[in-house]
Amino acid sequence: MMECKKALTENGGDFDKATEWLRARGIAKSDKRADRAASEGLVEAYVHHNGKVAVLVELNCETDFVARTDDFRALARDVAMHVAFANPLAVSVDQLPADVVERERRIYTEQVAQEGKPEAVRPKIVEGKLQKFYADSVLLEQPWVKDDKQTVGDLVKAVSGKLGEKLVVKRFVRLRLGEAV
Amino acid sequence: MMECKKALTENGGDFDKATEWLRARGIAKSDKRADRAASEGLVEAYVHHNGKVAVLVELNCETDFVARTDDFRALARDVAMHVAFANPLAVSVDQLPADVVERERRIYTEQVAQEGKPEAVRPKIVEGKLQKFYADSVLLEQPWVKDDKQTVGDLVKAVSGKLGEKLVVKRFVRLRLGEAV
Repeated sequence: MMECKKALTENGGDFDKATEWLRARGIAKSDKRADRAASEGLVEAYVHHNGKVAVLVELNCETDFVARTDDFRALARDVAMHVAFANPLAVSVDQLPADVVERERRIYTEQVAQEGKPEAVRPKIVEGKLQKFYADSVLLEQPWVKDDKQTVGDLVKAVSGKLGEKLVVKRFVRLRLGEAV
Repeated sequence: MMECKKALTENGGDFDKATEWLRARGIAKSDKRADRAASEGLVEAYVHHNGKVAVLVELNCETDFVARTDDFRALARDVAMHVAFANPLAVSVDQLPADVVERERRIYTEQVAQEGKPEAVRPKIVEGKLQKFYADSVLLEQPWVKDDKQTVGDLVKAVSGKLGEKLVVKRFVRLRLGEAV
């Protein structure tokens, strides 16, 4: 504790520099593996198309007990498979990059103008096109590939209700063979 | 083709703006799924620790014929499993972020000075510590978890020689449950 304070003082309060200073003196260890567990759940993998597309999904819940249930595991697997097929851009609308949303809005605004729609109805049409873009691009808004009468968000809510815990799709990664990195 | 030229002219040669212009006119489609296949190989997944850690690896080769061999599949699986256990920071030394390498170099330089080593031998000791850091942090330099007498790079070279094609570990992704994103 005293060493930490000294490290900060010696380095003008800069936390990163203080950490370096401590490591240089053998007091602190490398932070390379400093993963911090923040919640329960599973990381699930799915590979399809003869190994040309693969997905990881992290699905969180509140207790490890729920993480071990068949329903939770099935949901993790279903979400991973869905991502492999439907290739979403983000988990939720608020996780879409702002520049992507702005670009789409600009394009739709221009489209509606090109089509000569009356000024008064244009904002509503643009909003409708954005909603369609979300349903096409955002995981929780996409129709589920195994049952397109519900969205993936609906599916998560249904399983959440059944298991009695809050469930969160935290993130996904999808790799396709040969795509530009 | 004429439309593309017109789009570029109308948008001052800006390719992104021209693409937007074409989409606004219904001429071009969304580029959302514009993955481009550049090489052969496999994307392999590995999950361990009861679903708490999972890995995707893209392994490239020259022909789909080789991608379908048992040796190639076994290598993809071995590399994915290795990444799950050994948690490398990058595929190769040149893919380590420059600021990480600079930080390590600064720390080792300071360590060696603190230990009072003679000036003349310090650069060599720092270099040695950096090599150790690479062996600890870089996939191709790490001792293979299933046989630490060879590095993962040695393993890839051995399978490459056996199959008669250039093999490249293109990238990996490793997710651990609950880690900070």
